[in-house]
Amino acid sequence: MDTEALSHHISSRFNEDLERVRSRVLEMGGLVERQLSQALGAIVDADSQVLLTVAREELLVNQLERTIDEDCSRILATRSPAASDLRLLIAVLKTITDLERIGDEGEKIATIAARLAGRERPSSRYRELRHFGQLVSSMVHDALDAFARLDAELALQVARRDRAVDDEYEAIQRQCITFMMEDPRMIRRSLDVMWVVRSLERVGDHAKNLCEYVIYMVHGKDVRHTRLEDVEKELRGTLPSPVAVPVP
Amino acid sequence: MDTEALSHHISSRFNEDLERVRSRVLEMGGLVERQLSQALGAIVDADSQVLLTVAREELLVNQLERTIDEDCSRILATRSPAASDLRLLIAVLKTITDLERIGDEGEKIATIAARLAGRERPSSRYRELRHFGQLVSSMVHDALDAFARLDAELALQVARRDRAVDDEYEAIQRQCITFMMEDPRMIRRSLDVMWVVRSLERVGDHAKNLCEYVIYMVHGKDVRHTRLEDVEKELRGTLPSPVAVPVP
Repeated sequence: MDTEALSHHISSRFNEDLERVRSRVLEMGGLVERQLSQALGAIVDADSQVLLTVAREELLVNQLERTIDEDCSRILATRSPAASDLRLLIAVLKTITDLERIGDEGEKIATIAARLAGRERPSSRYRELRHFGQLVSSMVHDALDAFARLDAELALQVARRDRAVDDEYEAIQRQCITFMMEDPRMIRRSLDVMWVVRSLERVGDHAKNLCEYVIYMVHGKDVRHTRLEDVEKELRGTLPSPVAVPVP
Repeated sequence: MDTEALSHHISSRFNEDLERVRSRVLEMGGLVERQLSQALGAIVDADSQVLLTVAREELLVNQLERTIDEDCSRILATRSPAASDLRLLIAVLKTITDLERIGDEGEKIATIAARLAGRERPSSRYRELRHFGQLVSSMVHDALDAFARLDAELALQVARRDRAVDDEYEAIQRQCITFMMEDPRMIRRSLDVMWVVRSLERVGDHAKNLCEYVIYMVHGKDVRHTRLEDVEKELRGTLPSPVAVPVP
């Protein structure tokens, strides 16, 4: 932490409070990542037990969401934070909502995985889902990384990957529709694949939201609803370099 | 406003600030409701122009979301709000995210409506969508009403309706799958109906979230991830009566 940040935080308890919130968000992020990878793994490995595991983690995720929310409220009420500290807390309040919803999508995918486990598996062994799942999971992972390091550049890069996710999503959907039309016996299985990719596409959207909150934290700039090219131009141009925020 | 609330707010400017935030949230809610009803109306009336209208409103919704976010940050930074005022601001920060996402679903429905407008219409004229759309739209409307009146009882009633939405959602999905299996020429149209009901089901979830924030504002109680029966028991039992918050 640089001296500016040090002098900024008169109270070291305040610093500890903020640090605790940040590390809890990362803990929650880790849980959500695990939910997602377990759900996706269960599709590939035809694991029908996955629903129990993912639902158990869901309880932990919900608990953490509440705790972090309460922490933020308490800090807002007792410490009157300003500038970058206030932005951190506002960003965290929004971040945990998106994280929790990524977990929800993980649970939806796990439900489908449990159903698919009981059926005959296609020769592709859901290769398209595996690849798409990796694409989206890496977005979540890197978005959390950007949060941990308060790295707005990385956040911007990750947000940009959402376009590739949308393209791949469209491609898989089209493929599924073709399969269904060619062979109506494929309808149920194709629908399940379509629901999974739909969930993953949502996860990509949530990961993009996480990135936007990181940029807001670092630059104090609300970049939602802004074209990424314009965000990039602005971040490289007029904006000051990242403000000092405690980094572990 | 009662005397307790009056004495609570020493500064009338502070009161005005909070009032402005509340009325902007309701304005945003009104826009989002309109987006949704235009999108649903376009399915029934085969209106291919709807996408333009809804997209135009989306810009206004996004603008309002930013403005309200900025207002909340400014009030948090300059007024150090506590207790119910702080809860109001935190609830608003979360409420507008859900409102914006209801608008997003409205846009997705409008996209499908524009596509359906170019095709032959079924004899039912999408009766099932009309009914389901009304069910979900009324949830959004009443959730906003509960927000406007800070009515936690109403919020609880509305949140409870999400179960009926989920049941109807499942029923329509099953029906669509049956249609597709019986006649593969119905696949595309059935898929479009399925995407619309999926979007509407999400809107129901968002409306339920709005209700939970109202309960949090009024009772200071985080009821997410709690069974509604338990929430009801608790609200009727141990909790104090609603706290005084300025009501227009």
